[in-house]
Amino acid sequence: MSSVRTHKVAVIPGDGIGIEVTAAAIEVLKAVQDKVKGFELVFTEYNWGSALYKQTGSYTPKDWLDTLKGHDTIFFGAVGDPDVPDHISLWQLILPMRQHFQQYVNVRPSVVFKGIDPPTRCATAEGGELDWIMLRENTEGEYAGQGGRSHVGHEHEIATEVAVFTRIGIERFLRFAFETAQKRPRKLLTVVTKSNAQRYGLVLWDEVAQLVSKDYPDVKWDRILVDAMTVRMVAKPQTLDVIAATNLHADILSDLAAALSGSIGIAPSSNLDPTRKSPSLFEPVHGAAFDIMGKNLANPVAAVWSASEMLRWLGEETAADMLFNAMKASLAQGIKTADLGGTHKTTEVTKAICDLIKGM
Amino acid sequence: MSSVRTHKVAVIPGDGIGIEVTAAAIEVLKAVQDKVKGFELVFTEYNWGSALYKQTGSYTPKDWLDTLKGHDTIFFGAVGDPDVPDHISLWQLILPMRQHFQQYVNVRPSVVFKGIDPPTRCATAEGGELDWIMLRENTEGEYAGQGGRSHVGHEHEIATEVAVFTRIGIERFLRFAFETAQKRPRKLLTVVTKSNAQRYGLVLWDEVAQLVSKDYPDVKWDRILVDAMTVRMVAKPQTLDVIAATNLHADILSDLAAALSGSIGIAPSSNLDPTRKSPSLFEPVHGAAFDIMGKNLANPVAAVWSASEMLRWLGEETAADMLFNAMKASLAQGIKTADLGGTHKTTEVTKAICDLIKGM
Ligand SMILES: CC(C)[C@H](C(=O)O)[C@@H](O)C(=O)O
Ligand SMILES: CC(C)[C@H](C(=O)O)[C@@H](O)C(=O)O
Repeated sequence: MSSVRTHKVAVIPGDGIGIEVTAAAIEVLKAVQDKVKGFELVFTEYNWGSALYKQTGSYTPKDWLDTLKGHDTIFFGAVGDPDVPDHISLWQLILPMRQHFQQYVNVRPSVVFKGIDPPTRCATAEGGELDWIMLRENTEGEYAGQGGRSHVGHEHEIATEVAVFTRIGIERFLRFAFETAQKRPRKLLTVVTKSNAQRYGLVLWDEVAQLVSKDYPDVKWDRILVDAMTVRMVAKPQTLDVIAATNLHADILSDLAAALSGSIGIAPSSNLDPTRKSPSLFEPVHGAAFDIMGKNLANPVAAVWSASEMLRWLGEETAADMLFNAMKASLAQGIKTADLGGTHKTTEVTKAICDLIKGM
Repeated sequence: MSSVRTHKVAVIPGDGIGIEVTAAAIEVLKAVQDKVKGFELVFTEYNWGSALYKQTGSYTPKDWLDTLKGHDTIFFGAVGDPDVPDHISLWQLILPMRQHFQQYVNVRPSVVFKGIDPPTRCATAEGGELDWIMLRENTEGEYAGQGGRSHVGHEHEIATEVAVFTRIGIERFLRFAFETAQKRPRKLLTVVTKSNAQRYGLVLWDEVAQLVSKDYPDVKWDRILVDAMTVRMVAKPQTLDVIAATNLHADILSDLAAALSGSIGIAPSSNLDPTRKSPSLFEPVHGAAFDIMGKNLANPVAAVWSASEMLRWLGEETAADMLFNAMKASLAQGIKTADLGGTHKTTEVTKAICDLIKGM
């Protein structure tokens, strides 16, 4: 059995529907592992989240980042709780991981799959008009975490949010973007900024994009302002392929992309450290969604697709493809949760995907 | 003639299609003035823009803000030129006006008019699902203009964009938002922030919204994160009425709103100083659009609708309604430019609106 490739997976289900969709992802991962053979996923689950915070005052034990470092990859569900201000929960769990492990690219693909009726006229089904990879800078910019408040509670109170952009941070990210575009059939890259209003960091983005582009002469690239980009996504989806944007701009645009492709319930994300010095993290784009939690209503597709991307990053291409194809097939068969207009439960969709894998 | 109300209008056509749509707006304003009587608009045109910049090195003469102060209102076309970096043109013309005159609310309505086929399934025509007023904080936040670059051109270069939020700035804006909601039939207000990731200024927004809301118990209000807001706009337009957001968030969301209502070519904006100490400014949301400039292709509706809002702000309600109704009627009759799927030219749409006014 020495030829079995072992991958150590840290699993953090977190809060709300994060728990349900993580369970679904692990189930399908086990199904595909049984089917494909040759590799073994060793799951270690961590109960870090809002329940722990309410007991102990902290989302995680002190040494949590070192603990995670001992794994090959991280699978994350969602974090957030009605009783905890979001800026506390998120800055104690998901945001520190992205920054500490220098997961500087967040990959968020959007496709209109067969079986899904997209909300716009332009975004026709798979192989058609909407087939994007949104790349999000994931460690700096508007999420650098700097800023503060003065004169708190007084009439003259002032607060700042300081977005920090480094040449190194932008360049390493945009190189990844040009390389991603290079590998796609259409080789298109759209770099999003707001350099007309934001004269420092976003002008630097424009300049670095210009410089980096010289190394990728085969990539056709253009620039667009973030506001105009929303119009283009709605009205001309076929003109877009790979999209690169700042941390906040892509946060916003990736939710829009998910909505235009049918539902935020199917949108996956890969938080990558392309240098592979640290574990990368895979998670659905959606949040903890307290309103539907515990009701078996959550769409597991975003988590399942994220799991497929995790397998791909671990080098398990065959398994990744199988998982992805089973997920697509289940959608094409109309096995869909309520967010997609279907009537299936979380566990029914998960079982359907597992069954499809078994039959492959 | 002493009973004729006089309004001094500073007209700044600016660049690109700004020039064409401003001409259209003035034409319809004159038509409605002839029809309604009782008021007189005194137009003074200023040739401030990129052409002047290329000649003189400056977009405007030194005393331009004082000059404008002598007017009751400002009508603006667009600014931007392929030969001038956008952050220069915009920070020399449009952005200083918004800040200097403390036009702290930018009002951006979106409606799906009869005659327009909206891009999404959910956004049905007028009186239906999509009928929003987006309010944009217009003087601070991400457009405060602070920030800088260090180690320019070196590998370790760093740039910052400093968003500045003041309690006073947020409060005066949100009061306007609650009052706007109070006057609408449904009395709904949605306050957009990103306080999960942005822990200082956006948390302050949440706190001030909470406080201000107490004075408007009849307004039903909720909060949403800017990323999730894009999903709601696409999928559940009918749940939205008045929307309030930061300068950058609303910049992005208002373009999306325009796209979802049919075209950015119809979206108007009113940059208001609600204290009326300074002139307010009216302009289409769209930009200079060099690609179609000088071709008689620009949609004049955004400028015409902006002109109608200007009349309303000046207290000329009858004229404002007439202009708005003529504009709606022309759309309902299928008189539309290419961006709306029509074949009419700028001047044809303008003439149709003028003719409709004459016949009223
Ligand atoms: C939960 C939140 C902090 C997060 C973000 O803003 O990055 C989420 O919206 C996302 O897109 O992953
Ligand atoms: C031209 C530009 C500076 C401006 C903005 O970002 O405010 C425009 O996009 C708008 O929405 O009015």
